[in-house]
Amino acid sequence: MRILADNPITATVPFDRDGKHHGFLRLPCSRDSSAWGSIMIPITVVHNGPGPTALLSGACHGDEYEGPIALQGLAHDLEPAAVTGRVIIIPYMNLPAFQMARRVSPLDGVNLNRCFPGAPDGTPTQKIADYFERTLLPLADVVLDFHSGGKTLDFIPFAAAHILNDRDQQAACVAAMKAFNAPYSMILKEIDDVGMYDTAAENAGKVFVSTELGGGGTATARSARIARQGAENVLIHAGILAGEATQNKSVEIDTTGPGCYHLAETTGLIEPLIDLGEQVSAGDALARIWPADRTGVAPQVIASSVSGILAARHFPGLISMGDCLAVVASPVQ
Amino acid sequence: MRILADNPITATVPFDRDGKHHGFLRLPCSRDSSAWGSIMIPITVVHNGPGPTALLSGACHGDEYEGPIALQGLAHDLEPAAVTGRVIIIPYMNLPAFQMARRVSPLDGVNLNRCFPGAPDGTPTQKIADYFERTLLPLADVVLDFHSGGKTLDFIPFAAAHILNDRDQQAACVAAMKAFNAPYSMILKEIDDVGMYDTAAENAGKVFVSTELGGGGTATARSARIARQGAENVLIHAGILAGEATQNKSVEIDTTGPGCYHLAETTGLIEPLIDLGEQVSAGDALARIWPADRTGVAPQVIASSVSGILAARHFPGLISMGDCLAVVASPVQ
Amino acid sequence: MRILADNPITATVPFDRDGKHHGFLRLPCSRDSSAWGSIMIPITVVHNGPGPTALLSGACHGDEYEGPIALQGLAHDLEPAAVTGRVIIIPYMNLPAFQMARRVSPLDGVNLNRCFPGAPDGTPTQKIADYFERTLLPLADVVLDFHSGGKTLDFIPFAAAHILNDRDQQAACVAAMKAFNAPYSMILKEIDDVGMYDTAAENAGKVFVSTELGGGGTATARSARIARQGAENVLIHAGILAGEATQNKSVEIDTTGPGCYHLAETTGLIEPLIDLGEQVSAGDALARIWPADRTGVAPQVIASSVSGILAARHFPGLISMGDCLAVVASPVQ
Amino acid sequence: MRILADNPITATVPFDRDGKHHGFLRLPCSRDSSAWGSIMIPITVVHNGPGPTALLSGACHGDEYEGPIALQGLAHDLEPAAVTGRVIIIPYMNLPAFQMARRVSPLDGVNLNRCFPGAPDGTPTQKIADYFERTLLPLADVVLDFHSGGKTLDFIPFAAAHILNDRDQQAACVAAMKAFNAPYSMILKEIDDVGMYDTAAENAGKVFVSTELGGGGTATARSARIARQGAENVLIHAGILAGEATQNKSVEIDTTGPGCYHLAETTGLIEPLIDLGEQVSAGDALARIWPADRTGVAPQVIASSVSGILAARHFPGLISMGDCLAVVASPVQ
Amino acid sequence: MRILADNPITATVPFDRDGKHHGFLRLPCSRDSSAWGSIMIPITVVHNGPGPTALLSGACHGDEYEGPIALQGLAHDLEPAAVTGRVIIIPYMNLPAFQMARRVSPLDGVNLNRCFPGAPDGTPTQKIADYFERTLLPLADVVLDFHSGGKTLDFIPFAAAHILNDRDQQAACVAAMKAFNAPYSMILKEIDDVGMYDTAAENAGKVFVSTELGGGGTATARSARIARQGAENVLIHAGILAGEATQNKSVEIDTTGPGCYHLAETTGLIEPLIDLGEQVSAGDALARIWPADRTGVAPQVIASSVSGILAARHFPGLISMGDCLAVVASPVQ
Amino acid sequence: MRILADNPITATVPFDRDGKHHGFLRLPCSRDSSAWGSIMIPITVVHNGPGPTALLSGACHGDEYEGPIALQGLAHDLEPAAVTGRVIIIPYMNLPAFQMARRVSPLDGVNLNRCFPGAPDGTPTQKIADYFERTLLPLADVVLDFHSGGKTLDFIPFAAAHILNDRDQQAACVAAMKAFNAPYSMILKEIDDVGMYDTAAENAGKVFVSTELGGGGTATARSARIARQGAENVLIHAGILAGEATQNKSVEIDTTGPGCYHLAETTGLIEPLIDLGEQVSAGDALARIWPADRTGVAPQVIASSVSGILAARHFPGLISMGDCLAVVASPVQ
Repeated sequence: MRILADNPITATVPFDRDGKHHGFLRLPCSRDSSAWGSIMIPITVVHNGPGPTALLSGACHGDEYEGPIALQGLAHDLEPAAVTGRVIIIPYMNLPAFQMARRVSPLDGVNLNRCFPGAPDGTPTQKIADYFERTLLPLADVVLDFHSGGKTLDFIPFAAAHILNDRDQQAACVAAMKAFNAPYSMILKEIDDVGMYDTAAENAGKVFVSTELGGGGTATARSARIARQGAENVLIHAGILAGEATQNKSVEIDTTGPGCYHLAETTGLIEPLIDLGEQVSAGDALARIWPADRTGVAPQVIASSVSGILAARHFPGLISMGDCLAVVASPVQ
Repeated sequence: MRILADNPITATVPFDRDGKHHGFLRLPCSRDSSAWGSIMIPITVVHNGPGPTALLSGACHGDEYEGPIALQGLAHDLEPAAVTGRVIIIPYMNLPAFQMARRVSPLDGVNLNRCFPGAPDGTPTQKIADYFERTLLPLADVVLDFHSGGKTLDFIPFAAAHILNDRDQQAACVAAMKAFNAPYSMILKEIDDVGMYDTAAENAGKVFVSTELGGGGTATARSARIARQGAENVLIHAGILAGEATQNKSVEIDTTGPGCYHLAETTGLIEPLIDLGEQVSAGDALARIWPADRTGVAPQVIASSVSGILAARHFPGLISMGDCLAVVASPVQ
Repeated sequence: MRILADNPITATVPFDRDGKHHGFLRLPCSRDSSAWGSIMIPITVVHNGPGPTALLSGACHGDEYEGPIALQGLAHDLEPAAVTGRVIIIPYMNLPAFQMARRVSPLDGVNLNRCFPGAPDGTPTQKIADYFERTLLPLADVVLDFHSGGKTLDFIPFAAAHILNDRDQQAACVAAMKAFNAPYSMILKEIDDVGMYDTAAENAGKVFVSTELGGGGTATARSARIARQGAENVLIHAGILAGEATQNKSVEIDTTGPGCYHLAETTGLIEPLIDLGEQVSAGDALARIWPADRTGVAPQVIASSVSGILAARHFPGLISMGDCLAVVASPVQ
Repeated sequence: MRILADNPITATVPFDRDGKHHGFLRLPCSRDSSAWGSIMIPITVVHNGPGPTALLSGACHGDEYEGPIALQGLAHDLEPAAVTGRVIIIPYMNLPAFQMARRVSPLDGVNLNRCFPGAPDGTPTQKIADYFERTLLPLADVVLDFHSGGKTLDFIPFAAAHILNDRDQQAACVAAMKAFNAPYSMILKEIDDVGMYDTAAENAGKVFVSTELGGGGTATARSARIARQGAENVLIHAGILAGEATQNKSVEIDTTGPGCYHLAETTGLIEPLIDLGEQVSAGDALARIWPADRTGVAPQVIASSVSGILAARHFPGLISMGDCLAVVASPVQ
Repeated sequence: MRILADNPITATVPFDRDGKHHGFLRLPCSRDSSAWGSIMIPITVVHNGPGPTALLSGACHGDEYEGPIALQGLAHDLEPAAVTGRVIIIPYMNLPAFQMARRVSPLDGVNLNRCFPGAPDGTPTQKIADYFERTLLPLADVVLDFHSGGKTLDFIPFAAAHILNDRDQQAACVAAMKAFNAPYSMILKEIDDVGMYDTAAENAGKVFVSTELGGGGTATARSARIARQGAENVLIHAGILAGEATQNKSVEIDTTGPGCYHLAETTGLIEPLIDLGEQVSAGDALARIWPADRTGVAPQVIASSVSGILAARHFPGLISMGDCLAVVASPVQ
Repeated sequence: MRILADNPITATVPFDRDGKHHGFLRLPCSRDSSAWGSIMIPITVVHNGPGPTALLSGACHGDEYEGPIALQGLAHDLEPAAVTGRVIIIPYMNLPAFQMARRVSPLDGVNLNRCFPGAPDGTPTQKIADYFERTLLPLADVVLDFHSGGKTLDFIPFAAAHILNDRDQQAACVAAMKAFNAPYSMILKEIDDVGMYDTAAENAGKVFVSTELGGGGTATARSARIARQGAENVLIHAGILAGEATQNKSVEIDTTGPGCYHLAETTGLIEPLIDLGEQVSAGDALARIWPADRTGVAPQVIASSVSGILAARHFPGLISMGDCLAVVASPVQ
């Protein structure tokens, strides 16, 4: 077993002192533009006596905005007196990616959600992963990580929990996910969970909730409200905030069946025929793809393999071979 | 007066022969990647006997998709027998910009909708403008040019006509705009109309209709349907297609009053508080802007200067000083 | 004669109202990253009753820092009560270049100090030039424009005035330049003054002072103090501020003689042998240039053509053929 | 333990033959621009009979110039007859970085001084490190590696030795460092010495001296002279050159105390208030940071946490959050 | 021993079913431009009953064209009825590199022919290597991998086999290489075979043939015909196709002697004095290198170290220090 | 008529003094990388008493190499004693493009052979054109400008003269072109001669010869020899050099008939079926274009519209819609 070096990231805020502390996770990063520079990842810790710890994060992918908005608001509004225990808020987990509005880090090209457990002597993104793995996750009881579709995908808003080997842990995760109370809810099994923060948190035995709340590289007033309310609901559920969580209707959906995912096998201009949240029957045309260089050629038609509702779609107006064009979800009875 | 050179663009399709012709506007373009290369702009001409000519175009800005989708469909579906006169369809007016999904041309950085009347010996984009100015516009009676918000703006779907000095021409434009039958309609006065294709067409005495049908660098099934139906409605209105145009309710809006436009005076993460099409009262908060580099700082709040409905908004999750944050339109009584 | 269009730049501050006003020159700029964006150039106007107007600017080249520092300080500290007349302060004249730390604008590649009189319908930099030419210069009596060497040159600190056809104007400019009281002073004749802001201001009959105060893409505490003191001295000289200007010793230098400029005729690693401000005799070696790809080859030695003091030097460690390696100035007796 | 492959680098000069040999370290590097290309790192070996070996290197970071200048001169001037033993001179250790004037290699983005011990089958920079680790260091008794601040930092000129576990080795290093006779001298303990060439050399039991002699991406005549004289002094000290080393006054400084390092916690235009080498008292303002996008806002003032002299400073005119703004050193009594 | 993860690549075609199947190797690749995108590498499998399997590939380096042309033709023309056994055809092995016309992958900068055995959880190129290593090679009996010089080298057309420890395997490889029947033939020993696909195939006990058929980033009608005929010859030799292989004269050459490779030790404009395939005697000038920045300087002359025929040459008009300028091969008696 | 400013280019060599002079055309060029930098275009003037002047140039397009090679050799070898009159040699006319191996200038994106007559206050390339137009052409009697196909085209080697209105001038040009004695000869009429150097020289009444001698971004020993011999032949023809010009067979070809030019109307991998210089009959397939993203699709076949010999072809392995695929020339009887 390899002995890991110390992680060079240091926090400018205390994790154990009562009160509200705004500061940074400081990650030294020597580069052309700054020989002795640091990446300064904003963090807020709200602490009030004994109690559970929630770890809330956004912008694991830098082009997803509902989490950052909800967490900036929460960091601003949350007062220690309202809290029992501790809330650790990191709105821009992959700050360099967030500031460039990119999915992956501009510093190393690494996808933060595919590089766990990271490495303390690796690239900047790997160092962030290692710091979450070995410093922050051990502090937490409940972990909420916000995702959306980013610039290239768009989703109906849902919270998700994973199928886990430990049934008790899974039940706790599903309960927290339902507490989030997004318009849609999903219980899923990751096929390829290598390197994910989700897996790291679950392997550490935490109650973990993830989301997909929209996409396209933007947020709407509606999707931002869902994110903020969901975060508060999870904190109430965890016993950290007092009060009553919302209990709006949430549609349970499933995307694990064969044929849910639809891939583009040509490149061109996409004409969507079904919008997010609409019903589709197996065989219905989901979209047409027109050539981007000529007229007078019939489009390629992509028909749905299954019946259900359109849960995710390719966002940009042009699509490339191999892109995910659509995900059709089955409602769970 | 300067004698203009011949425009080097040649069409591979005839404009005067009956039938349906798919081809290209060929623009010679010598560059590093092709010493003797050409830009091949797709064009379809559908011609059937005498009658009016409609000139339909999309992707004047290369990141706007409703027009290209509607016009690819129309070029594919329209049969000469259904036409009286002529329809000239150019789905990707600024092809180089369209293929790179950019607003302006990657070849010269020029905004096609700000460079009219263009120049036959100028940059590639200026040559395209000159070809429309001197070759295509003279062929047309009715001109429909599709726009949307592109990657950085999002709009409620509307068709628009301009206030013109010639009242008869204005009336004809407004009639055609209303025939388009978008969910919203707008009569507007361009403050700064220098270099616009709109102005070129209007100065040439044409019936001209423009649109803004969505944005964000995508299209939806709904916005694409509006575009296609609108194009057919305009062709029916012009007497080129037979049949009945749709006559759904369209809300007339106006954005020429003082205070409609709201500018960002800081840079950061934008939290929208109002969605497109929603009502807002003067003084209501439209959005908050949070810092992108720290927590614990109050956001800048942008309040609406006027009452009305949110007609346009900044699309990306990050906003920069000087960006247009929101346009609040007044419903016209 | 061409009729010029209106300049699209608008000021968010009044020029004619007493008090201190911080705001922006707003330059609309439609581009890929913002369809309806604007460049917001900061401006401060301090106005107090009748009196002369001084127009102070920095960052005409975006990698020169003494002017911006002095003018931010002045904009912050100057109170209307201390002023007779008006001070217009624009610390970052070419804001897009300043924010990218580049000499020329990243938007159009244009050198602001080579594009006067600009054009109201030109590129963004040309629009800025036109706004200075037709809107700001007419408001001014005294014009002070700060320069330094930027990232590629370094200078001994001097203020400069030009030899002009109008002897009275020249005398007024020289008096203002001497009032600036930099450690060195220079009266010069521009060989190639086409497109310069200096020429635009002088042709408009203004009292104009320019500077070179350091370089290398940095400022020092000393060079920043010279800039701030110089600005205050010019305002005192103009009767806008009360008090006594400093009258430290200033060495008069001249660089118009043949042989002052020394060009590199090879590319490589530069070894300076003389530092800025040091004496050199004709024939002395100024620097050696070593090959950047091998050892064991004798360096090229650049000897001074004249005697004098080293007034300017190439800054980066590598030098290219054609770069200005050194300027040797003659002290004026 | 992993068996390491052979390093693909070959030297075109002999290390063991008397005389002066100029040549290259040839590193095969297949890439887009040259399928069968090589990186050719210049090297000079001066050899004369038995005696100690000095290994001298510059441009470990490619934007630091005092070392390259001193070593090109030495490679040119040093004659075998003057030498007892051997001098190995590599002026441009990270040649690809040096030729692009970048800190890190343009080929792989790797910082050569953070990747020791390197890898023979790794990226080009890792191969260079491995060649120093396993081929050159074993040949050496005394190792002198030149550094400066590069484009983003500026230093008072000092030589440095590390605190080592082996007191005898440390004493030998300190003696060599003092022999270098820079204007300032420093004994330091690296907090994070992972991957450094310094550590590799010290772990191999060598007498190791490092320097910081200036910065900003330039050299001055003065700093270049310090570098050249220091190299000769170390060779005299090692018994390789005859003669007398200079013994000018050198100020001993220390930067290991708490509070020596000052970080920027905002982004903007930096106004330095203290210059390199000047005295500062705890609480004195070191610099102000002004916003780069507006006037009329008070600057952030960075006060010194300690008393001492300014030993290092951020160089570029703009500063970013997390950059090292200043290092205040304590004189050693 | 490390347990390898499953490779995420899936084939959309069956390997075991009779008939001709066109499809893709689908490699999931999450990136900024497509969060849930895939790389779709075209593949054709032609299967007809029991018999040997040939694995044919091109564009291991993305700027080499003879292989892709021959294999597209073969995939199009080959009918199952003509086949005994199986032919697996992958014309664009490194599809991302091929589509950008680059030697290495634009996704990770990795050279596919230097990264075997790859890694299932590595970069995209490493995943491709792993899929060949663990999935495709085990299916094959005979492996033919097409190479040419790419954009920076040009070769006389030859097929090659390696000297192997297993004499029987070597004999089988040489027989297949001779069956290819290129104008030139070569038996070679790789000095540095780390990471090569060749080595991977040979270590797996396969009959392996490689080629170099031209270069410069183009193909000619002649070189494309050699490639196609060679592929058919190998299939005939393997018993997969019926018929008679061509048996044209092929010159055996050798490039393993000392002095065959000639390196540039300066940078400039190359003047070739000998063309590919021409005879040269030791001492003959192969080329001159002129400076790219001045006239009036004598060129560097590169003389051949050996006698033979010019087998490979640097292709671009400019050459850099360290580039391979020429390879002179010895005819084998 | 516009009064033109002085051109800022200065020559460091005399044009009127006997002897051989190597130097530069110095073009001041202020840019980010050098505030006071210059472009230094190499020039050699060989002068010996009265007599005609020849102006020889290469690298008008920076990726064409036969001219630069021939002219560097000539500048090196030609001695004044051998000359009657004057030879002005500029091997790298567009030096910035040549040094980047690009067709157009990296400084302004301008094609030097499309920007005549240039402008003294324009972009750097326009200044070069103006200097040739107003300073160099007036000095010349005979003008020889070398071209080849560059990186994207390849040609059979020919010299060319234009059909001119002035029959005497045309006859003189044709005679000089034939004297050049390339393997092929062409008399042509430019359809679109706007901005060409050819036109500028011809309009100035000069004897003008142009060439296309190969391409692909390389030169061969054979094509370089043709260039050098051709230059000497033209100098002999002009009476500047003594001796006998070669009189090898040269095939006269013509490409002005309809159908000579063949354009690609699809994008993909090109399979050439005919090589340069080979005969083709109308209807013969010239090439096939295969898709770059899939197998199993029939290629597009491009058939020749005319009979003749293949005179030019697209060079890179990938081709884009609109590229010139082939030029078939008719032999002139």
